[in-house]
Amino acid sequence: MKSELNRQWILAERPDGLFSEDHFTYQEAIIRPLQNEQFLVEVFYLSLDPTQRLWAETDTYLPAVEIGDVMRGLGMGVVVKSRNPAFQEGDIVQGMTGWQSHVVTDGRSFSQVPANSGLPLSAYMGPLGMTGITAYFGLLDIGRPEAGETLVVTGAAGAVGSIACQIGKIKGMNVVGLAGSDDKCQWLEEELGIDTAVNYRDPSVWQQLQQACPDGVDVVFENVGGKSLDMALGLINVGARVALCGYISGYTKEQNPGCHNLPMLISKRASIEGFLVLDYVHKSREALTDLGKWLMDGRLKYRMDVETGFKELPTAINKLFSGENNGKLLMQINKLPESP
Amino acid sequence: MKSELNRQWILAERPDGLFSEDHFTYQEAIIRPLQNEQFLVEVFYLSLDPTQRLWAETDTYLPAVEIGDVMRGLGMGVVVKSRNPAFQEGDIVQGMTGWQSHVVTDGRSFSQVPANSGLPLSAYMGPLGMTGITAYFGLLDIGRPEAGETLVVTGAAGAVGSIACQIGKIKGMNVVGLAGSDDKCQWLEEELGIDTAVNYRDPSVWQQLQQACPDGVDVVFENVGGKSLDMALGLINVGARVALCGYISGYTKEQNPGCHNLPMLISKRASIEGFLVLDYVHKSREALTDLGKWLMDGRLKYRMDVETGFKELPTAINKLFSGENNGKLLMQINKLPESP
Repeated sequence: MKSELNRQWILAERPDGLFSEDHFTYQEAIIRPLQNEQFLVEVFYLSLDPTQRLWAETDTYLPAVEIGDVMRGLGMGVVVKSRNPAFQEGDIVQGMTGWQSHVVTDGRSFSQVPANSGLPLSAYMGPLGMTGITAYFGLLDIGRPEAGETLVVTGAAGAVGSIACQIGKIKGMNVVGLAGSDDKCQWLEEELGIDTAVNYRDPSVWQQLQQACPDGVDVVFENVGGKSLDMALGLINVGARVALCGYISGYTKEQNPGCHNLPMLISKRASIEGFLVLDYVHKSREALTDLGKWLMDGRLKYRMDVETGFKELPTAINKLFSGENNGKLLMQINKLPESP
Repeated sequence: MKSELNRQWILAERPDGLFSEDHFTYQEAIIRPLQNEQFLVEVFYLSLDPTQRLWAETDTYLPAVEIGDVMRGLGMGVVVKSRNPAFQEGDIVQGMTGWQSHVVTDGRSFSQVPANSGLPLSAYMGPLGMTGITAYFGLLDIGRPEAGETLVVTGAAGAVGSIACQIGKIKGMNVVGLAGSDDKCQWLEEELGIDTAVNYRDPSVWQQLQQACPDGVDVVFENVGGKSLDMALGLINVGARVALCGYISGYTKEQNPGCHNLPMLISKRASIEGFLVLDYVHKSREALTDLGKWLMDGRLKYRMDVETGFKELPTAINKLFSGENNGKLLMQINKLPESP
């Protein structure tokens, strides 16, 4: 091992609202020598996800990140040295790398990315990764869509939302997306082929949503919560299912606008059900088989918003909360490995 | 038929907040002569239910009551004249009588109350009526309780809530009720035998609720919504079920406090599901068999809050929203029939 240092972002303080650099400390650490069964990964992609704010703030479905620990996060990298026979030098792997340039691991949370699939590596951080699996099971298992039904997706231009929209179309639904800009709406309608995209910042959003759902709403794939959820609930049919994937409007306590339309669930005998992709990891092959096929067929499109830089991580993640990102947000922190 | 007049309350204006006399017009109408298949009921009990405010305000699961029509409501009465062979003079019947002293009907929404059951007639307007059926299917079908789990019931001293609490005990649960006064809490613990009752007006309600649920909350039977629901959601376990029966805190738009804890549904893979007793009427025999047995065994207790008067209907119903009622609220508007 050369004397290369591990660049790290350490959680220094729990966020209450948005992240800032004050919540993290940058440090450079010596890379530990490998023990038996361990290998060293040089990380090149880090995934930025809304749930990371929760991980930093409090115990949720995972214990909170400890103050003083490397910030938790999914990443992808290349094995540069290995004492683990299952992981060879040059293998591309993904797993819980954390916000650091290098990670020494026994591989427990890591898996290999297929080589030479013909798809860019970033696809495995998006539609063929947790993002795609989340959209797949959230819509199909919780939403239980039927052809001809109407699906409303909030955060429709986001990483997960845009995949959910397209799976809805593949399943024969009338798909209506709420997104945060005219550009995003144009992309959803013209590139992804959804039926109607509505800019939720438009003053006539409620009228537009009603027009786009003349037969009411049967399934809601909810990423935003608050006002978006209230509007969708205002249009639900008897027996509607709301798959609660995220609630980005409520991730910061001060802003949480609450939901005022829950009584609709009674008149419409409807349900809201939360889910986590972690519960579906054991079935991920089923999702990845379908998603891979749809990608190859050109029925599933995606876009990645790949930033570069390591120092910018604490501020770049806030693009998720302001809605500035265009597609799945990745931070590239090292050069990509050369193709073999 | 003597020249007796039908006293009626007509919906004159849609309420926005609570009911007042301004929303109704009192009138006395001629009782129509019976046509073939019709019979005349002299109504003695009228059921007052939170959902009636919704019926008067807007289309929900039933069309809104028309302005100019008799206010819709469940009632019980005695058949005083009949040209319908299925309903004899002297039969006790219940159905959608509306807010009037007499009703002429072909019997479509009416059913006979069993004579000589040994139970007071009012029981059929409470635990052996819609109230009991609501609690039974809401808890068992939507809540899916298991022995040893913890059940939180909001509006626990109310008509439906108090039955749900006791079914929870019969099913072996740790039952925790939220109610609006110390007297109600005492009744719940000492008379109904639930494990813990907490006065939601007490400043330490959150601490008390946490203490009463040391193993978290598995099932919520929700009648109130808003802050009560937020507290219950704050304690749910993985896989918890919220049976949404009512949302009395949100029945008036100005007051609707919203729900701010929905993101908990995600971390806990939990669900909120609304239901209506109307969907279970075809299975009511199943519920009534169990409820009747539990009543006879003394395992199920109830109390009725029976007011008298007809002119007082428009204001009496507001006791449901202020929480002043003690048990199922009935208005007695005529003398009860003499036992045979």
